Amino acid sequence: MTALELQIEEIIDRALAEDLGRGDITTDALIPNDQQGSGLVVAKEEGILAGINVAKQVFQRVDPQLKVEILLEDGARVKPGNKIAKVSGSIASILKAERVALNFLQRLSGIASETSRYVARVEGLPLHIMDTRKTTPGLRSLEKYAVKIGGGENHRMNLGDGILIKDNHLVALHNQGLNLKEIVAKARHNVPSSLHGAPLQSERRSNLQVRQPQVEVEVKTVSEALEAVEAGADIVMLDNMNIEDMRKAVKSIHGHALIEASGGITLDNVRAVAETGVDFISIGALTHSSRALDISLEIEAQ
Amino acid sequence: MTALELQIEEIIDRALAEDLGRGDITTDALIPNDQQGSGLVVAKEEGILAGINVAKQVFQRVDPQLKVEILLEDGARVKPGNKIAKVSGSIASILKAERVALNFLQRLSGIASETSRYVARVEGLPLHIMDTRKTTPGLRSLEKYAVKIGGGENHRMNLGDGILIKDNHLVALHNQGLNLKEIVAKARHNVPSSLHGAPLQSERRSNLQVRQPQVEVEVKTVSEALEAVEAGADIVMLDNMNIEDMRKAVKSIHGHALIEASGGITLDNVRAVAETGVDFISIGALTHSSRALDISLEIEAQ
Amino acid sequence: MTALELQIEEIIDRALAEDLGRGDITTDALIPNDQQGSGLVVAKEEGILAGINVAKQVFQRVDPQLKVEILLEDGARVKPGNKIAKVSGSIASILKAERVALNFLQRLSGIASETSRYVARVEGLPLHIMDTRKTTPGLRSLEKYAVKIGGGENHRMNLGDGILIKDNHLVALHNQGLNLKEIVAKARHNVPSSLHGAPLQSERRSNLQVRQPQVEVEVKTVSEALEAVEAGADIVMLDNMNIEDMRKAVKSIHGHALIEASGGITLDNVRAVAETGVDFISIGALTHSSRALDISLEIEAQ
Amino acid sequence: MTALELQIEEIIDRALAEDLGRGDITTDALIPNDQQGSGLVVAKEEGILAGINVAKQVFQRVDPQLKVEILLEDGARVKPGNKIAKVSGSIASILKAERVALNFLQRLSGIASETSRYVARVEGLPLHIMDTRKTTPGLRSLEKYAVKIGGGENHRMNLGDGILIKDNHLVALHNQGLNLKEIVAKARHNVPSSLHGAPLQSERRSNLQVRQPQVEVEVKTVSEALEAVEAGADIVMLDNMNIEDMRKAVKSIHGHALIEASGGITLDNVRAVAETGVDFISIGALTHSSRALDISLEIEAQ
Amino acid sequence: MTALELQIEEIIDRALAEDLGRGDITTDALIPNDQQGSGLVVAKEEGILAGINVAKQVFQRVDPQLKVEILLEDGARVKPGNKIAKVSGSIASILKAERVALNFLQRLSGIASETSRYVARVEGLPLHIMDTRKTTPGLRSLEKYAVKIGGGENHRMNLGDGILIKDNHLVALHNQGLNLKEIVAKARHNVPSSLHGAPLQSERRSNLQVRQPQVEVEVKTVSEALEAVEAGADIVMLDNMNIEDMRKAVKSIHGHALIEASGGITLDNVRAVAETGVDFISIGALTHSSRALDISLEIEAQ
Amino acid sequence: MTALELQIEEIIDRALAEDLGRGDITTDALIPNDQQGSGLVVAKEEGILAGINVAKQVFQRVDPQLKVEILLEDGARVKPGNKIAKVSGSIASILKAERVALNFLQRLSGIASETSRYVARVEGLPLHIMDTRKTTPGLRSLEKYAVKIGGGENHRMNLGDGILIKDNHLVALHNQGLNLKEIVAKARHNVPSSLHGAPLQSERRSNLQVRQPQVEVEVKTVSEALEAVEAGADIVMLDNMNIEDMRKAVKSIHGHALIEASGGITLDNVRAVAETGVDFISIGALTHSSRALDISLEIEAQ
Repeated sequence: MTALELQIEEIIDRALAEDLGRGDITTDALIPNDQQGSGLVVAKEEGILAGINVAKQVFQRVDPQLKVEILLEDGARVKPGNKIAKVSGSIASILKAERVALNFLQRLSGIASETSRYVARVEGLPLHIMDTRKTTPGLRSLEKYAVKIGGGENHRMNLGDGILIKDNHLVALHNQGLNLKEIVAKARHNVPSSLHGAPLQSERRSNLQVRQPQVEVEVKTVSEALEAVEAGADIVMLDNMNIEDMRKAVKSIHGHALIEASGGITLDNVRAVAETGVDFISIGALTHSSRALDISLEIEAQ
Repeated sequence: MTALELQIEEIIDRALAEDLGRGDITTDALIPNDQQGSGLVVAKEEGILAGINVAKQVFQRVDPQLKVEILLEDGARVKPGNKIAKVSGSIASILKAERVALNFLQRLSGIASETSRYVARVEGLPLHIMDTRKTTPGLRSLEKYAVKIGGGENHRMNLGDGILIKDNHLVALHNQGLNLKEIVAKARHNVPSSLHGAPLQSERRSNLQVRQPQVEVEVKTVSEALEAVEAGADIVMLDNMNIEDMRKAVKSIHGHALIEASGGITLDNVRAVAETGVDFISIGALTHSSRALDISLEIEAQ
Repeated sequence: MTALELQIEEIIDRALAEDLGRGDITTDALIPNDQQGSGLVVAKEEGILAGINVAKQVFQRVDPQLKVEILLEDGARVKPGNKIAKVSGSIASILKAERVALNFLQRLSGIASETSRYVARVEGLPLHIMDTRKTTPGLRSLEKYAVKIGGGENHRMNLGDGILIKDNHLVALHNQGLNLKEIVAKARHNVPSSLHGAPLQSERRSNLQVRQPQVEVEVKTVSEALEAVEAGADIVMLDNMNIEDMRKAVKSIHGHALIEASGGITLDNVRAVAETGVDFISIGALTHSSRALDISLEIEAQ
Repeated sequence: MTALELQIEEIIDRALAEDLGRGDITTDALIPNDQQGSGLVVAKEEGILAGINVAKQVFQRVDPQLKVEILLEDGARVKPGNKIAKVSGSIASILKAERVALNFLQRLSGIASETSRYVARVEGLPLHIMDTRKTTPGLRSLEKYAVKIGGGENHRMNLGDGILIKDNHLVALHNQGLNLKEIVAKARHNVPSSLHGAPLQSERRSNLQVRQPQVEVEVKTVSEALEAVEAGADIVMLDNMNIEDMRKAVKSIHGHALIEASGGITLDNVRAVAETGVDFISIGALTHSSRALDISLEIEAQ
Repeated sequence: MTALELQIEEIIDRALAEDLGRGDITTDALIPNDQQGSGLVVAKEEGILAGINVAKQVFQRVDPQLKVEILLEDGARVKPGNKIAKVSGSIASILKAERVALNFLQRLSGIASETSRYVARVEGLPLHIMDTRKTTPGLRSLEKYAVKIGGGENHRMNLGDGILIKDNHLVALHNQGLNLKEIVAKARHNVPSSLHGAPLQSERRSNLQVRQPQVEVEVKTVSEALEAVEAGADIVMLDNMNIEDMRKAVKSIHGHALIEASGGITLDNVRAVAETGVDFISIGALTHSSRALDISLEIEAQ
Repeated sequence: MTALELQIEEIIDRALAEDLGRGDITTDALIPNDQQGSGLVVAKEEGILAGINVAKQVFQRVDPQLKVEILLEDGARVKPGNKIAKVSGSIASILKAERVALNFLQRLSGIASETSRYVARVEGLPLHIMDTRKTTPGLRSLEKYAVKIGGGENHRMNLGDGILIKDNHLVALHNQGLNLKEIVAKARHNVPSSLHGAPLQSERRSNLQVRQPQVEVEVKTVSEALEAVEAGADIVMLDNMNIEDMRKAVKSIHGHALIEASGGITLDNVRAVAETGVDFISIGALTHSSRALDISLEIEAQ
């Protein structure tokens, strides 16, 4: 159980309230509440399933009497026609829950599927495909969960998770007259070490072997990448760099810092980027621009 | 002011809580709260702007002292480099709000932009591009707003807005032994007429000229389309029909019912679909599969 | 299920929290939790029952073990002594829930009963008795539901449901120098047509047979009524007009627009108003001034 | 400031959300946001004003720029035409807030006015007119406030406020084989004494002069009233007793217990009831059946 | 059921959300969800148990399948090694709930235990040990419940419960030029009498035997104590007075007013304070400075 | 700004609602709302200040007109009589907010002060004093903040922050037949590495230099400590070990793992524990058993 799981009821209720309005007037006009039947959740295109338990919870929130049999678990690769789940009980209830259940399932499966496509492209290479903080407002935890289901990994969950000195920080800091070395040192000093994720601020023990914070710095050129490593960066993010420059950067700094490629990554170029030798490739599009996976519900009346 | 606008503070707070976690440790480590400066919100790709007021509200929730000057309003066509807004005040505050503000702005602008591309493709033809209920859980009103900004129109906001007898209803109803004529009649009878959107159930006055409910029926073949019109449908939704069949269906029923095309519509085929003479084209992808519009924030320290 | 039904738990919880304070000290002092028995919900005056399911939910929120047997459904005409429901289980639980359950049931039944009295007065006449937006803050959906149970119909649920140009709009608009024809045209233009309740703003297709918005205009005199019809109003609201003038107005505009009478309607004059030939009579008092129906709970200890 | 005042924002937000739906489409279509003007809140019937500050808060929630000048305070006796408040600023904002502001003001003023009518009928007699717990779910504190504004007093705010042994308790208790004396003693023993409202349970000090709990018992006959006093009741509630019996009961028990009359009290009989010499008259109708006071808003465009 | 009990789910959810974060990564990594077993809640030090039902609710919120057998009820005196409850089911669920369940149980038991130590010290003396309003924000009702479990009594639950004129009021009032007699009279006049806790403001009946409000006045010297009694105080709070002065104050005012000692009370001096003859001793430390009672959970795998 | 800061308004509102009830009847009876004055927040005992900004927010929530001048910031060492803040405006408002503001300030300052006492005892030694997850339900973030203000450090914020294999895990795991080496390996494998706090689950790249998770193991004996280190633990928690054993454990494993002492730590023994050479000392009592710091508010009427 996570804090998110405690909140999921509320997320589902908001989604249902949005969709129900003054009630499902079509179903209320046509389908008696006691007509029994079942609905099959069926994949209409190939992809990776994610969110089936959220969908189940939607059905049972609308009608606790609905029975939801999960036939394929999150992470399953589905093909058109595959049966994902069977929902049984009042047909009217199934129809009222259908759209919201599918909206969750299609979005999360869409993200998992897109992630899996990137992961497949880099098969055999020793690196991670990662998400970013470019997620749908209100759904970050669910979307980051879908990325993992698709074989990707999660970058920072939020701004409290790690130090990432971005271009905008550098502009502000150069205005303070600091060079990169001083900036990295300042970051390390102000968030000096950590135990179990919680930062330790005290300087009580200089030789303490606790976690030094990993300082990540965003750079735009090879020389900036070198400068960042020399300044002590643990991770260097190569932002929107071309393949050639990435290769040079990796050659220069490999072994001295972890390397993350970010910006402008597509399915077409991800393999080439990966082959430069970077350790991570982070892709905002996994969450901000994935297509929904086509999944539908088909009623089988009794 | 709408009910949504009363809730937007809550939506923004949830998004900020997601992103802030235990605080922006990078900015806190590096940027003093009193360092003043400004940030420009800048378009990085061509599209239609939507959501700038939501973004403004995010900045001012993080720091009520931030001044947000809106340079381009929702609906503006932006090109790479166009300045959208200028945010002035504490740089630390700007950086803490940046990602959430952009997440809203990019998503909504992405939807508006995608919508506008469909609208452009059908230029000159007398029909509407519409959305569906396939929206992101929790963000429906914002996303439907973005569709309108992009030149599209809104289909049902929720299940209480209108009668749409879909395939799944028909399966259940045929099980009751009803034919389509009886089904349409039953729907009309049970939601017989309306005034200002609120349904009137009483049969007190048969000749009352109040609104009869518009009954929409989903069909898959030309003959079903004809049958639906004969059954009294006001609107017929041609679901996943090929162009040729759509043309036949339009020819047969034009003037007798409004016609909506839905399912499998892409930028490539939308013009052909439109030229069949349908009145509406509804596209779930507008909201469930739009790419985010690339927009960034660039700090200008003082 | 409607959005309201998702919120009803919250409405009930607020009502219970109000009534329970630091606990029912009388019952706690006197009745052991395990004393079993039952309570009968009994009508003490004649009227129409509404809200029995809300009352049931209150009992079961206080104690999920309580068994509530509904003996009369919403819409039933009750007479003094009629048994409405039987609640069985812990007597202490029944007593703690009693007042809140009855507060809902008495208010909603009061509204249904008052509505039914108006409906009875106009029996045989082809018109509708309608409510208004003058409802109790926080309970609108429940109260409008009770009106329907009483045989009435619902006017606008909220300001987004339809166009009603009231006196106050006209004052502001005359200040803009617009005449009524221009005002109606402006309203129609700005909310030009609708599909399934959602307004269509685009003017892409002038001859589209989608819903034109119904424009309703409030008038105070016969000549204003005529002017409104000539200006293109679909519905004319005769505000606080005397019977004679109403008759004249109906004679002049019948067949050209729907006619709603509003203001100053009482049980004494509603028949006379109805006989003028208006199509609707709307009555704020249905919801803002109904008396509660007298209903009580009688414990039967075992 | 009270706990209620902390919640009033939420109550107002719920009421506005109910009324705004997808927005005020009439006003949005017709009135530009920047058209300035003012609205007068005007009494249309005689009564006692209550809730003007809630109404003010509604206006300013819709638009913080609205200026609300309160011309008459709560408790003022208004006559038709009296100006209650003046609201200035954007006319569109005033119109959007109007109905919700009036719904609060009319209901609360209706309760205050009805209360004041009862209070006037018993003028000169030494007793209190009181409310009950028969209030609108969710609005108890506001409604009890309105009763006080009307010159009445508040009975228990909730079940934790005092001991009132009602008919239903007695049924359950007689089943336990207890007589009234034992019942009163049991109540007193189990909630033995109090300091500042918080009950003291310990029996540490038998002669402690702290508050003994006031035990109130509901009776239906004169002999029950006597029995209750002999059993030690501090207050006796004469439930639905006729005038003659009330007089006898008062004669017998006056000076030995406080006496409350309840049930079946109307404006017609309240004076006669009061003249029997009872100390309190409690009237559920004050809150469950008051008519709204007629108050309207009149726009004055500039 | 109390208003608090309606809110306890929310209090527990907040506590769980705080503790779960992105999930219990240790347990998820190591313990399969279906490994069954049980955990014993065991006392590690002597004290009074309070909160076992809250702890039970925590376990069942994390996993409704967990079976919680309560072996010792609130109020039990526990010794090291005593078994308090047995929790059976998924070990992973038990471990996820453990800390939050214990945090409630240890805090509430700590308060009950500390209270019981004070109560024990004054054994045989006719007075009450009371709490104050110095409670943990958000947990007042639970903490005041724990005080009662420990044998103490509750002073005011909140500022609406009774009149307590403190030093700070007196400073402000002397500035108005009022003497103590006038101040007490003003308080009594403005909150003149009460029925069932609800204040009666009307002066309709001067000789009404309803509750006069108990006016409590805080004093710092013996002469102030006398002055307060002469001014009509019902209760005098001796604030931070030494034993000798308390004795004098009690001697002078005993029988004329109730006497509360407050400020600087410790386990060492509470008996001496009690022996002065005061009626109440109120101790903020019961809730603001109690140590948690040491209680742990021990897994017994199957 | 942190997620907590977004929620603090809600925490404060709950605390105020608890304390205000039906309103501050004493202040309302005695102090006119327009009487101006000021209150000084004054330390009554020596300690470390924490929470002054929360207190300020409480005052301004009760009355936005109150001016709060902060005279000493969080972290200041206060002595009896030191002025912490000056609050100016309506005296009635100050009195209504006083208790809640002080309840936050006293609790947080109590925690900071207790922490600082432990920190002082280990002065000059290279180790950290840390808190635990034994915090007050609902206030964890505030309490962990207070620990840092007192010079301590934060252990895990929640169960998602790091791997800590406790005694109860080991019991369950030994039941699975795993030895410690296998357990540590399983933990490391299932949460294999992390970037910026977010765990990486993929095994795509075995030689990736990303963060290996720090695995902490709780042990009770020296031999278990050695076994844990050999099993690969990064941190070993010596639970309730005596000084002599701690010394032996440190001698054996120093340099191979970080060492945390926990359980049974008091101000009396913390120095001796520290001198054994452990790296961290974690103390539940910092948050579960701190005394409130004595701070009061003194009104100065004008």
